[in-house]
Amino acid sequence: MSGNPAALIERLVQQPVHVQLKDGRVLTGKLVGLDEHLNIVLDDSEETTKELSRRLGRVVLRGSNVVSLNAPPGGIGRAP
Amino acid sequence: MSGNPAALIERLVQQPVHVQLKDGRVLTGKLVGLDEHLNIVLDDSEETTKELSRRLGRVVLRGSNVVSLNAPPGGIGRAP
Amino acid sequence: MSGNPAALIERLVQQPVHVQLKDGRVLTGKLVGLDEHLNIVLDDSEETTKELSRRLGRVVLRGSNVVSLNAPPGGIGRAP
Amino acid sequence: MSGNPAALIERLVQQPVHVQLKDGRVLTGKLVGLDEHLNIVLDDSEETTKELSRRLGRVVLRGSNVVSLNAPPGGIGRAP
Amino acid sequence: MSGNPAALIERLVQQPVHVQLKDGRVLTGKLVGLDEHLNIVLDDSEETTKELSRRLGRVVLRGSNVVSLNAPPGGIGRAP
Amino acid sequence: MSGNPAALIERLVQQPVHVQLKDGRVLTGKLVGLDEHLNIVLDDSEETTKELSRRLGRVVLRGSNVVSLNAPPGGIGRAP
Amino acid sequence: MSGNPAALIERLVQQPVHVQLKDGRVLTGKLVGLDEHLNIVLDDSEETTKELSRRLGRVVLRGSNVVSLNAPPGGIGRAP
Repeated sequence: MSGNPAALIERLVQQPVHVQLKDGRVLTGKLVGLDEHLNIVLDDSEETTKELSRRLGRVVLRGSNVVSLNAPPGGIGRAP
Repeated sequence: MSGNPAALIERLVQQPVHVQLKDGRVLTGKLVGLDEHLNIVLDDSEETTKELSRRLGRVVLRGSNVVSLNAPPGGIGRAP
Repeated sequence: MSGNPAALIERLVQQPVHVQLKDGRVLTGKLVGLDEHLNIVLDDSEETTKELSRRLGRVVLRGSNVVSLNAPPGGIGRAP
Repeated sequence: MSGNPAALIERLVQQPVHVQLKDGRVLTGKLVGLDEHLNIVLDDSEETTKELSRRLGRVVLRGSNVVSLNAPPGGIGRAP
Repeated sequence: MSGNPAALIERLVQQPVHVQLKDGRVLTGKLVGLDEHLNIVLDDSEETTKELSRRLGRVVLRGSNVVSLNAPPGGIGRAP
Repeated sequence: MSGNPAALIERLVQQPVHVQLKDGRVLTGKLVGLDEHLNIVLDDSEETTKELSRRLGRVVLRGSNVVSLNAPPGGIGRAP
Repeated sequence: MSGNPAALIERLVQQPVHVQLKDGRVLTGKLVGLDEHLNIVLDDSEETTKELSRRLGRVVLRGSNVVSLNAPPGGIGRAP
């Protein structure tokens, strides 16, 4: 039984998620908004690269830069 | 006799699939959702790169990053 | 006398074809489905790169990654 | 409870923001205009790269080059 | 006096043309089909790269990979 | 109070502006035309790269190559 | 007073122009056709790269590859 991605993503709202961007960055935060282009808004977000980690607060991500979005099985505490 | 790709893909739902992404990653998981942009939702997904493998849980893949989707003849147990 | 590409491609359905992807891979298989975005479905497909060849079964290719599609004069037995 | 990104971004107007561009540049300034493509207009903007910082005045950013937009928790005084 | 590109290209149908692709390949063949996206169908096509030349038969080129199309002044016998 | 980017850009018409392109070039000139894709027409334009500067006269820039447009606080006499 | 880019470009028809492509090539020729995507048709065109110059005759350029179009102040005889 198939489901619409938009509907399936909607269930992730208010949950902690990882967002993988095309430029290699991974952002984690609470998913508070998204639309059909996969434009994403995260609250209390944190950016992680190979070198560093920093807090970004509320962040808006343009969908065209998003590769994937996932809710990790063990929660955000795990490495993305 | 030709078939519409969307209809042909629909038959892969609930099956284990490999998804090849533009950035070289391969994800495997159960196909639970997709739309006309080839936005894809996988359950119990696993990411494989040359270096490592890790569990991602439910993952949403933006269609613009998807190169190909296939149901391997011998199932997911085989190397992608 | 000009022809519409979509109509001309339609004639290739059920024939063995080569598909050249942007990432350098070449896939061969029986063309079973396609649409106006050049999303393509192949059956009994095989992927060839410089290093290796492997069977992919039914594969869905997102049109945005397709460079060209051709039916080789001598059939699929020839090198792509 | 989900929110529309466009509505959530609207709340950032007249606030100091960081804009991350695809080419690696970071611009800071007061957000004075934006639309559904994430085209952005900043006032009193400043561009920061690894090498330098310079004032750009009013700047218009084409949405297709925007990666992310954020209002840093501690304000613009912090490093982006 | 200006002309519509689509109308001007239509006049090239059934003529031998060179097609320059984004990946550096040049294809020559008889133009038998094209549409408004510059999707192109060539018959009796031949691919030329710096290293080699090979016959492709009927080939479909996705418009997004096409850089330019030209009918060389001296015909196809000349180097592209 | 938010403003529409298109309306805000309109105010820059007939003013000297800098346009940053994706390929690293910076063009300066008088903004004489633009549209919703950020296609831009400059008069008396000058191109500046790291190596050289040259006059281009009237130039049309395709919006998809434009990164940013700004009216520098001190006018065009300053370095872009 | 602002002008529409399409209308401003229309005035360049039948004039000698330089077209800068994304792949670094510069083409010169008489502008004989164009449309809203900046698809361009040149007559008596000539391609110039760092290494060589060659005649292409009538050439069709896909708009997505066009960076800029200009009518040089001193005419085509000058270096592009």
